[in-house]
Amino acid sequence: MSSTTELEKLRKFMKMKKLSVQLYGDNVGALVTSETNIRYLTDFANSEGTLFVTKNKSYLLVDFRYGEAAQKNVTNCEVVVYDNYAESLKEIVKKHGIEQLMIEISDVTIKRAESLRPILNDVDCKLVSNNILDKLISNMRIIKSSDEIAKIEKAQQITEEAFLELLNIVKPGVTEAELALELEFLMRKKGAEGVSFDLITITGKKTSMPHGVPGNEAVQRGDFVTFDIGAIYDGYHSDMTRTIAVGEVSDFQREIYNIVLEAQLTAISKVKAGVKASDVDKAARDVIKSKGYGDYFKHSTGHGVGLDIHEQPFVSPKSEAILSPGMIITVEPGIYLPDRFGVRIEDMGAVTKDGYRNFATLSKELIVV
Amino acid sequence: MSSTTELEKLRKFMKMKKLSVQLYGDNVGALVTSETNIRYLTDFANSEGTLFVTKNKSYLLVDFRYGEAAQKNVTNCEVVVYDNYAESLKEIVKKHGIEQLMIEISDVTIKRAESLRPILNDVDCKLVSNNILDKLISNMRIIKSSDEIAKIEKAQQITEEAFLELLNIVKPGVTEAELALELEFLMRKKGAEGVSFDLITITGKKTSMPHGVPGNEAVQRGDFVTFDIGAIYDGYHSDMTRTIAVGEVSDFQREIYNIVLEAQLTAISKVKAGVKASDVDKAARDVIKSKGYGDYFKHSTGHGVGLDIHEQPFVSPKSEAILSPGMIITVEPGIYLPDRFGVRIEDMGAVTKDGYRNFATLSKELIVV
Repeated sequence: MSSTTELEKLRKFMKMKKLSVQLYGDNVGALVTSETNIRYLTDFANSEGTLFVTKNKSYLLVDFRYGEAAQKNVTNCEVVVYDNYAESLKEIVKKHGIEQLMIEISDVTIKRAESLRPILNDVDCKLVSNNILDKLISNMRIIKSSDEIAKIEKAQQITEEAFLELLNIVKPGVTEAELALELEFLMRKKGAEGVSFDLITITGKKTSMPHGVPGNEAVQRGDFVTFDIGAIYDGYHSDMTRTIAVGEVSDFQREIYNIVLEAQLTAISKVKAGVKASDVDKAARDVIKSKGYGDYFKHSTGHGVGLDIHEQPFVSPKSEAILSPGMIITVEPGIYLPDRFGVRIEDMGAVTKDGYRNFATLSKELIVV
Repeated sequence: MSSTTELEKLRKFMKMKKLSVQLYGDNVGALVTSETNIRYLTDFANSEGTLFVTKNKSYLLVDFRYGEAAQKNVTNCEVVVYDNYAESLKEIVKKHGIEQLMIEISDVTIKRAESLRPILNDVDCKLVSNNILDKLISNMRIIKSSDEIAKIEKAQQITEEAFLELLNIVKPGVTEAELALELEFLMRKKGAEGVSFDLITITGKKTSMPHGVPGNEAVQRGDFVTFDIGAIYDGYHSDMTRTIAVGEVSDFQREIYNIVLEAQLTAISKVKAGVKASDVDKAARDVIKSKGYGDYFKHSTGHGVGLDIHEQPFVSPKSEAILSPGMIITVEPGIYLPDRFGVRIEDMGAVTKDGYRNFATLSKELIVV
């Protein structure tokens, strides 16, 4: 880890402490339990572990299986390899005189909260189950640092390189599942730690399902093929959709494609700091409505991307987000005609003071392979 | 879906209703939210969707993105493609006069429960947040049907075939990450829908970390290589660990290997219906303790496997489970010597009336490649 990153993480901790102090006084702590938030704050990537943030010091609690890895890799908090989780929690509470412990209510299940309460009760500490901690971290994560942006761009670059290589095998006869598997393999060979989600590589009528699952259906001449794909690089996701045609394309297919493209370009042209996310959504939606296909575009126009594939800000009709520099959003309108076909086109990029720095570099002209 | 499976699923629903009626009277419903439990009860595999079970009828609520897929694939409940989730919930509550709604407290977050409460309140329905529903489904899932067992065995078969192919490339110079990627690709080519977990293919000193993450470390002569691997077939997981040596093996390595193997075989010999899971754990632990390595075997001896990679019953010192026919358990003791090496050997199989039907068919003699 670079010391810059380290300092940045420490600064994040301090912000958190500051806000929590404002809200609750001196004796508040925060228990961070979600895997992505722990990774965000400590660079420790693991499904196990909880991060206990106090005013003066932070602790990463892991069980012995991950002790060696945590001790080697985590530098900005004390690693506690616990034998007894409850006792380790109590020790920290007592040492720092924590009277109230915030938790992430969007991560902690009812069962987990019920198991925490008596433990904390033993040491006169109260569980605070409002959404302050969730909001706090979410608001930190919504603006990406240059380090984070570099990782997202790298994830996008891997995705594009893999996609271009894959195009060589997109021809009649190859199945959706083969395309998905080959694409994933190409991404991983190029350094992806995984895929952003189960890759969507669907053909023909199935393209009318925004989230169709690749199966044994083979690509056929005259079909659209939708690729909604992304790679993960060092925890950070990319997300891109391209719809291409195989062999030939009908006038109607081209017409729908061009409407979606116009909607996408129009929405992108609205993006800049200070704009409401809902207005970006509206821009795409209005184009599609004006052409008579409003009923066939039901999902949101976009979403934030980072350590999670879907995160704030959401680019939807009901979104209350105002775009700011450093936010990463997708712009991905689509039209889905049941039992016929669907088209979606998606880029991902950073909001800037004056516009949108698009991380996707691949053409959006309709490709016919 | 075969009609047998369908009937079986209906039977499961009826059991659930029966118990819930006993517990709460006629006007209780159940909201199933976890992906695996929904898959278990409906065969619908998706991250989105909730299953609302009432006394007379069950509903799968999905948003429009998954509507087409759900309507095509789900046959044992009514598919509701909602525009407004809250309104759809209320309609079902009213239609069936539901007064109390059980939820899975190990799946529902505090935030989600808080969003459900006012919706239900509007229609005079109370959220029941105890662990009855979790236990009910977990107790159903703990005993596998023959269909489920067939899928788990298929997942194991894929794992073994892929592992045997992979052995051809296990030689000095190949990296851990290359082994993991190639193995996953082989499994997927053979029909796995994915891997059971991030595959563990680690070498040298890293084998002392029970859950080490494959990196750029290359296999070297004289190293142990630990493969903790598994495939998913139609939702069902497999799990197997083999530790092999490269080029040569020291007497000490062989000694530790043989202790672990003895512990594993001893534990397996204890498995049969009616035995306490904790006694199986103890059998493995006692062998390792008796040889002086008790401090280096800290994890549980095994766990159940099914739609989740770790599920009931747990084979640990504190487990209260009594083994029954149709339970699937792993048996996987290990010894981990920090900064030196580790050994783990793991099989997976079904508890039977008289013993353990081991799904792993690969030899456990120490392989030197």
